[in-house]
Amino acid sequence: MPTAVQKNLVISNEKYASSFTEALEGKLPLPPAKKYLVVTCMDARIDPASAFGINLGDAHVIRNAGGSAKDALRSIVISEQLLGTTEILLVKHTDCGMLTFSNNDAHQLVEKNLGAGVQEELKGLDFLPFPELDQAVKDDLAFLEASRLIPGEVAVSGWVYDVGSGKVRPVA
Amino acid sequence: MPTAVQKNLVISNEKYASSFTEALEGKLPLPPAKKYLVVTCMDARIDPASAFGINLGDAHVIRNAGGSAKDALRSIVISEQLLGTTEILLVKHTDCGMLTFSNNDAHQLVEKNLGAGVQEELKGLDFLPFPELDQAVKDDLAFLEASRLIPGEVAVSGWVYDVGSGKVRPVA
Repeated sequence: MPTAVQKNLVISNEKYASSFTEALEGKLPLPPAKKYLVVTCMDARIDPASAFGINLGDAHVIRNAGGSAKDALRSIVISEQLLGTTEILLVKHTDCGMLTFSNNDAHQLVEKNLGAGVQEELKGLDFLPFPELDQAVKDDLAFLEASRLIPGEVAVSGWVYDVGSGKVRPVA
Repeated sequence: MPTAVQKNLVISNEKYASSFTEALEGKLPLPPAKKYLVVTCMDARIDPASAFGINLGDAHVIRNAGGSAKDALRSIVISEQLLGTTEILLVKHTDCGMLTFSNNDAHQLVEKNLGAGVQEELKGLDFLPFPELDQAVKDDLAFLEASRLIPGEVAVSGWVYDVGSGKVRPVA
């Protein structure tokens, strides 16, 4: 029995595919046309394509909890070195879940929820929370600048998206 | 001087924000309304919101190179344990870049591009490529099932999205 979420995927996708133009959208090449990538949060209130103006085929979109550049490093290197992107937009957002807990809180909660049997897998798992939003953007920019895996030619900029207004602003 | 990519972000976002309804979209709560998460690839040819029927506020969307569940584990645990999601859709896709190289290829290419100075940072970096698509979906499902951090109650399903037709199909 499919779940409601699975049914929604199938039905929504049938509708999407019926208006999909195989001769155009279906022929887009693998490497992003506009040669850039976006790193942002998995947050349900962000629709990167609409909010950041990304057309189909334009850019890689990497999303994880907090929009962490550190967590995204593997994907960024693949995007830049194997698929030819040359620019990074890093977008974190207001009211992010990562502002609400510490690593210690998270470890304790997960162990309380799932039992002491998870200790081994939890050990060394850094949830990468952050206490202050703009500083977290700056820290991620500094991380990317310091990494030898991201060469100096790659343009990197940091932004904050406001989930209350839909507006993005640059972080100095 | 902003780059063309940065200008596009600012201009597209102004347009988006001007039709953003603060009283509705701006008031969506942090936890996803439909309590699920999607793990999919960063590929530029995938628009998860449109192709998979995800409305703003419905679901966490985690994206990385290849749509790797292993790479997404930190985000999945935060989504499930701290933000209340209870279901996972794992969606890989046809013509994925991860089908086209081995870890060894990638390491050699990155070193050739960036110089021997990157060896230290590259060491131990698993690019998580895969040689066969459906098997990669099954391997990720098995990884999630085996992880104690993903409890048995979490419904997990695997899918393949066809970038040529816009259609999604379940992986048995």
